[in-house]
Amino acid sequence: MSILIVGTLAFDTIETVWGKVERVLGGSATHSSIAANLFVPVKVAGIVGEDFGEEYFDFFRRHGIDTRGVARAKGKTFFWSGLYGENPNERETLATEVNVFADFNPVLPDDYIGSPYLFLANMSPSLQLRVLDMCKGTRFSILDTMNYWIESENDALWEALRRVDAVLLNDSEARQLCGTPNLMEAARKILSVHPKVVIIKKGEHGALMVGDNFQCAVPAFPVERVKDPTGAGDTFAGGFLGYVASQGAVDDRSLRGGMVMGTVLASFCVEDFGVKRLEDVNRSDIKFRIDVLHRLSVFEPVDPKLR
Amino acid sequence: MSILIVGTLAFDTIETVWGKVERVLGGSATHSSIAANLFVPVKVAGIVGEDFGEEYFDFFRRHGIDTRGVARAKGKTFFWSGLYGENPNERETLATEVNVFADFNPVLPDDYIGSPYLFLANMSPSLQLRVLDMCKGTRFSILDTMNYWIESENDALWEALRRVDAVLLNDSEARQLCGTPNLMEAARKILSVHPKVVIIKKGEHGALMVGDNFQCAVPAFPVERVKDPTGAGDTFAGGFLGYVASQGAVDDRSLRGGMVMGTVLASFCVEDFGVKRLEDVNRSDIKFRIDVLHRLSVFEPVDPKLR
Repeated sequence: MSILIVGTLAFDTIETVWGKVERVLGGSATHSSIAANLFVPVKVAGIVGEDFGEEYFDFFRRHGIDTRGVARAKGKTFFWSGLYGENPNERETLATEVNVFADFNPVLPDDYIGSPYLFLANMSPSLQLRVLDMCKGTRFSILDTMNYWIESENDALWEALRRVDAVLLNDSEARQLCGTPNLMEAARKILSVHPKVVIIKKGEHGALMVGDNFQCAVPAFPVERVKDPTGAGDTFAGGFLGYVASQGAVDDRSLRGGMVMGTVLASFCVEDFGVKRLEDVNRSDIKFRIDVLHRLSVFEPVDPKLR
Repeated sequence: MSILIVGTLAFDTIETVWGKVERVLGGSATHSSIAANLFVPVKVAGIVGEDFGEEYFDFFRRHGIDTRGVARAKGKTFFWSGLYGENPNERETLATEVNVFADFNPVLPDDYIGSPYLFLANMSPSLQLRVLDMCKGTRFSILDTMNYWIESENDALWEALRRVDAVLLNDSEARQLCGTPNLMEAARKILSVHPKVVIIKKGEHGALMVGDNFQCAVPAFPVERVKDPTGAGDTFAGGFLGYVASQGAVDDRSLRGGMVMGTVLASFCVEDFGVKRLEDVNRSDIKFRIDVLHRLSVFEPVDPKLR
């Protein structure tokens, strides 16, 4: 039950009120693969430059993540730099250098394209469509996107949405993509073109999952000290898909469990820079937070006695 | 187990994308009393002007709400006017005319001050302190406030916070009051000065309740067509306190139930202008939405099996 993740491997320079780190390993494929790999084997596809030394490949190997689909090219690796102020929900992007990723033309090993689970991390919809064309073995695919593609490749994005099983995006993206402030209406609009599941990430407000006949809302884990929110959304995606894949069936139970797992893993992600905290998370850490989240959400479905 | 509610009775002129209503009955005491009164007897204290005709008193009487504490004065009733755009989460206040409420000096009937439950709706903290001085029978008090008082009467507001059992405010108010973007940190700061419960209302993102040893997050009920959000917060407050009071004990179970009831009643409130929808809500309507909300929130506290 392996997962194929296609996305960026990047270097991030991040400054928050808690400090600054320079050129740490980041990118959507990095964060999501670390999370998903807790549950099932992960194969990563992406592209890196000459500055992506062997020590970074070793990092993935140490975790047992397959990087045979990661191409190396002349030039520099994708680079992102951001600044977070007092409010970790607001960030300023200081630099986005696409570098070698601009010429990314995925060539996937045979066993990659047979992976039953596929996460198309945030990248151009036309690239996502190309990957979908290649991946004949996919049984459950999830696509992430961002405002940039909603504006610049809207048609290709809707075409890609018509071909995936699930969509993951944040609340402002959902509103922008569907032209409505109402998140339920936005979810229904996406469901109407094909996907069976829409997951709307709301940061500190948790996440909402909507299908034709089910809905699920999970609050964010109440993290008291958010050190670096970078990668939280990708960690959520990886935790979600990794858990679902580990359950062997995509159904109400596994999808709800995936929402919880994504939420809990994202809460670890934000507690330190890069993938630092998530790298050494263990089963009892996760179990503890699942229990906290459960106590946070639980209530009895009382029958109200009116006067 | 009666509740005393002190707040505004007002006329509201509201325009949304769904239409416009002029001078409909509104105000914090109106919305919260209609909701609380579903569960326990409610006594309202406030002040109205000469334009507040007998038909409005009849409205409260018809619901069995005690209005002996509502003073009548020369002049006009509190008036508010607001405009909502495509996004119902954003509104523009066109007019706030305090009118007779500026001289509100509560004189409470003897049986009012013996009410075990007290809701101090949004008004000046010095007025809230005066009411707290009078109400000798209070066993559980909740205070609401707004950005205006956080800025103009900050000291009096903290003094009032030191004297109530619970505080209800929205997320932006909590951040402003406590000078932190982190809602958990904000809640802890308020808890540290005395209250046992802090409830942070997050509109479409639901509500969060924090105590020293418990937390509870309830998602908003997924309303697909929000016609008029005015009064949703006060309806939440009334539903919360009404349910808690009806349970005869302030404990984890009743507080969680109150969060759910407040959430569900607020979801009815926003579906029509003013108190129109809430006025004819019945037990099976409420029960249905509680069940939906329960299915929305429920998940099994799985023990993750890591690779």
